[in-house]
Amino acid sequence: MIRPDDLAVVVYKEKKYLKKIEEGKSFHGKGGILPFASVAGRPWGTRFGEYDVFPPTIEDVIMYGVRRETQIVFPKDAFFICHKLDIKCGSRVLEIGSGSGALTLLLSRAAGPEGHVVSVEKEERHYKNAQRNLAKYLELQNVTLRHADAADFEDGPFDAAFIDLREPWLYMEHLRALLCGGAPIGFIVPTTNQVSECLQALRQGFGDVEVIEILFRRYKTVAARLRPEDRMVGHTGYLIFARKIEAVVEELRATDGVTPP
Amino acid sequence: MIRPDDLAVVVYKEKKYLKKIEEGKSFHGKGGILPFASVAGRPWGTRFGEYDVFPPTIEDVIMYGVRRETQIVFPKDAFFICHKLDIKCGSRVLEIGSGSGALTLLLSRAAGPEGHVVSVEKEERHYKNAQRNLAKYLELQNVTLRHADAADFEDGPFDAAFIDLREPWLYMEHLRALLCGGAPIGFIVPTTNQVSECLQALRQGFGDVEVIEILFRRYKTVAARLRPEDRMVGHTGYLIFARKIEAVVEELRATDGVTPP
Amino acid sequence: MIRPDDLAVVVYKEKKYLKKIEEGKSFHGKGGILPFASVAGRPWGTRFGEYDVFPPTIEDVIMYGVRRETQIVFPKDAFFICHKLDIKCGSRVLEIGSGSGALTLLLSRAAGPEGHVVSVEKEERHYKNAQRNLAKYLELQNVTLRHADAADFEDGPFDAAFIDLREPWLYMEHLRALLCGGAPIGFIVPTTNQVSECLQALRQGFGDVEVIEILFRRYKTVAARLRPEDRMVGHTGYLIFARKIEAVVEELRATDGVTPP
Amino acid sequence: MIRPDDLAVVVYKEKKYLKKIEEGKSFHGKGGILPFASVAGRPWGTRFGEYDVFPPTIEDVIMYGVRRETQIVFPKDAFFICHKLDIKCGSRVLEIGSGSGALTLLLSRAAGPEGHVVSVEKEERHYKNAQRNLAKYLELQNVTLRHADAADFEDGPFDAAFIDLREPWLYMEHLRALLCGGAPIGFIVPTTNQVSECLQALRQGFGDVEVIEILFRRYKTVAARLRPEDRMVGHTGYLIFARKIEAVVEELRATDGVTPP
Repeated sequence: MIRPDDLAVVVYKEKKYLKKIEEGKSFHGKGGILPFASVAGRPWGTRFGEYDVFPPTIEDVIMYGVRRETQIVFPKDAFFICHKLDIKCGSRVLEIGSGSGALTLLLSRAAGPEGHVVSVEKEERHYKNAQRNLAKYLELQNVTLRHADAADFEDGPFDAAFIDLREPWLYMEHLRALLCGGAPIGFIVPTTNQVSECLQALRQGFGDVEVIEILFRRYKTVAARLRPEDRMVGHTGYLIFARKIEAVVEELRATDGVTPP
Repeated sequence: MIRPDDLAVVVYKEKKYLKKIEEGKSFHGKGGILPFASVAGRPWGTRFGEYDVFPPTIEDVIMYGVRRETQIVFPKDAFFICHKLDIKCGSRVLEIGSGSGALTLLLSRAAGPEGHVVSVEKEERHYKNAQRNLAKYLELQNVTLRHADAADFEDGPFDAAFIDLREPWLYMEHLRALLCGGAPIGFIVPTTNQVSECLQALRQGFGDVEVIEILFRRYKTVAARLRPEDRMVGHTGYLIFARKIEAVVEELRATDGVTPP
Repeated sequence: MIRPDDLAVVVYKEKKYLKKIEEGKSFHGKGGILPFASVAGRPWGTRFGEYDVFPPTIEDVIMYGVRRETQIVFPKDAFFICHKLDIKCGSRVLEIGSGSGALTLLLSRAAGPEGHVVSVEKEERHYKNAQRNLAKYLELQNVTLRHADAADFEDGPFDAAFIDLREPWLYMEHLRALLCGGAPIGFIVPTTNQVSECLQALRQGFGDVEVIEILFRRYKTVAARLRPEDRMVGHTGYLIFARKIEAVVEELRATDGVTPP
Repeated sequence: MIRPDDLAVVVYKEKKYLKKIEEGKSFHGKGGILPFASVAGRPWGTRFGEYDVFPPTIEDVIMYGVRRETQIVFPKDAFFICHKLDIKCGSRVLEIGSGSGALTLLLSRAAGPEGHVVSVEKEERHYKNAQRNLAKYLELQNVTLRHADAADFEDGPFDAAFIDLREPWLYMEHLRALLCGGAPIGFIVPTTNQVSECLQALRQGFGDVEVIEILFRRYKTVAARLRPEDRMVGHTGYLIFARKIEAVVEELRATDGVTPP
């Protein structure tokens, strides 16, 4: 049942809008006027003329709710990152570069009520915007938003970390110290030059390095004329993943040969 | 700390192996012999010669653990599906076509300890294989595996559903009845002909239909010679998503105009 | 040397303009005014402020010269088609569906002065537009443009054919009769449904059938920040190629076992 | 008509073989034995059991004929390069890095009987292999193969050039001097690091710089089960194109302000 003040996604053809169902208000679009008084009290999934009203998914919130003051991590990448970093109920997760807080919402959900996400943002303007977005859209009280520079941040240890910085290689040793042994870490960078810099920095103290690009292609949904859409997103960023090497055993036979990597 | 009988992923160059750290045993690979007696008691993330030993992620389990008697839903698709269907702690999820149970593991994790996944498999052989895989790798006790035909399955309602069948269009009305109003449903099919059939069947009773293809590209991880890998996976399947239309209001002004779609 | 009335491509940042260097005129763009009187008499490849002036390539003519009244075959596809059909100096080429004549220009060039291209267009409006484009941009006098329906066209035999029609399967037998034994034939269609129909029709009388899609990705050209462009063309069309089976020999030993396919 | 000693491509399912139809010999494959004595005298495009025999296209020659001692420029890239460089009947074309001569065959065809291709190879072993391949497969006598280093080569001017070297940026100024004003030049390099180096070197004396990647996707050709192939080529190389800036006019009004770039 759609209740007053619920968040809802209104779908009109291929456009979506995230709206609060405030009773005195209405939605004005190409499909006409949709008075919210007519919407409240109906079941979720009701079709009103050309408008369909659904409960918003996390993708709807990220795409149509979050106020963007930075480039966000788009769902195609965020969905992958979250599982690739093996985040599950109870995980302690570090995010460096909160940006607008879009990925933070997803990390929070994945870490669950028993988990904890620490998200660090250096720019005051972005920090405040992320704060607003989290206040509005966070489902669980498991996020600590910190206004700090990555280099000054000293907490830990974390089960996983995701880094969205311009020059992550400058912080690599520091970040490594915040992770549990074997913990996965991820990065997103837009250019190949940055990928090379990261790869260089990951040679010390990390293993299982991967560089991945996710291309996302939508199709037009007409059964008799199935075809990809004419235009697609050509690039968001390169994803880099690695895992922390905690110790190095040179001599397998020795039982006390653990040295720092 | 790696304890005896832990599952671990052993990484050698770009190959990975999922192994139980059984004390009397050892791993024999191109990097030499790795006796598990030397591994137990070390921290996670220890490097032994050319071998790195990490705690397995869910991707490691799906790729190197699950015994496959069917084509599995690959991580690139599974990770996306899981969030696209908006599965979160507490979700009640329906999976039709358990296959080898790979996606089931991920759905279980996403639904969390408060959630519930019902996974239905018709083929006895696959059902038994999925049962074995779940017994071995499931982290939470929130999955009910059912040996049944989709058409005979009558539970519900579910917050989300994922369907991996050859002819899902034959079951569309039945599946729709098992979903909550506005609930997302997803499908994976390998051919464009199947996509067209699904799109046709989704015209009644569903909205917000999307067809998506995820292309996944790996790069070689040499900083000074960054380049994509020579070969890549060209296709796994087309993903189709929709949401259940629960009711149709013809006249926006009327307050009692709800009709079944 | 750029001479008066030459066609030239004017490049300003990432935009290109095909212009006739008419002496009294000038080019007005974001880089300021470029008087053509200053251009004529200079060498090709002269940089005037932010404008570069080059001799137009066939890609420039197709992209910025040809007046489009139809969707054209884009260079990424046209360049491939031309060689895939093995067109060389002296080839006799059939094109069904001249459209705006963009591909015709390329086929003409590939067939060379000794070759011949017959291009057939049914729609009078497109025929006339193609005529204008060919009059303006054709380099060789080796094209016959015909205003006719594919079904009524009876010439031949051709060394190669390219078909850009909505329902090519309706003409398959007729088209086959116009080709030399073993000759390649190509098609472009936008939807998967059309691909399936073509494949079905090609089962009789054709061999070596291939379906191909060419994805074209541009990068931003900043050395220190190399990255793909944000948006790309997601789809133009599916390319289908086959070769004519001329005869079938059932019994390899027999010397007179040739039967029509 | 297939004559004795003709080159032919034998197609068996999705495999192709380039063969000389030598009368005493035969083709042995999974489709059985095909005695060439039965083939000679038949029309092109004859189907013999499961074998189809066609006249070889230039793609067949490049893929199944050319003996490779180097990585070749694959047809998907070669076909594009050839037109992008605007090569037509009469063009004078420079190729630095003949490799195995695969692209040379295509450039030769595009330049036509009136054109000329100069192809330069430094490595003696590759030079000799290219020589053999050209002797076997060249259609026109318009190619000069040179055993020389790019830096020592002093001919010109050329209408277009293609460079397949490991470090093309070392030769950029030298190469520029060999080109006509406004002439297009192309490069292929496998890594992003090389692309960045080239872009840096192209900043002086070149305009209209483009970086392009061509992804090529094949589909299985079953009408009722249309789908992309499971595996595809993930990467061959990045293509870079530019055009020579011949002169720079600082002051548009002045008529004698041409300075070298």
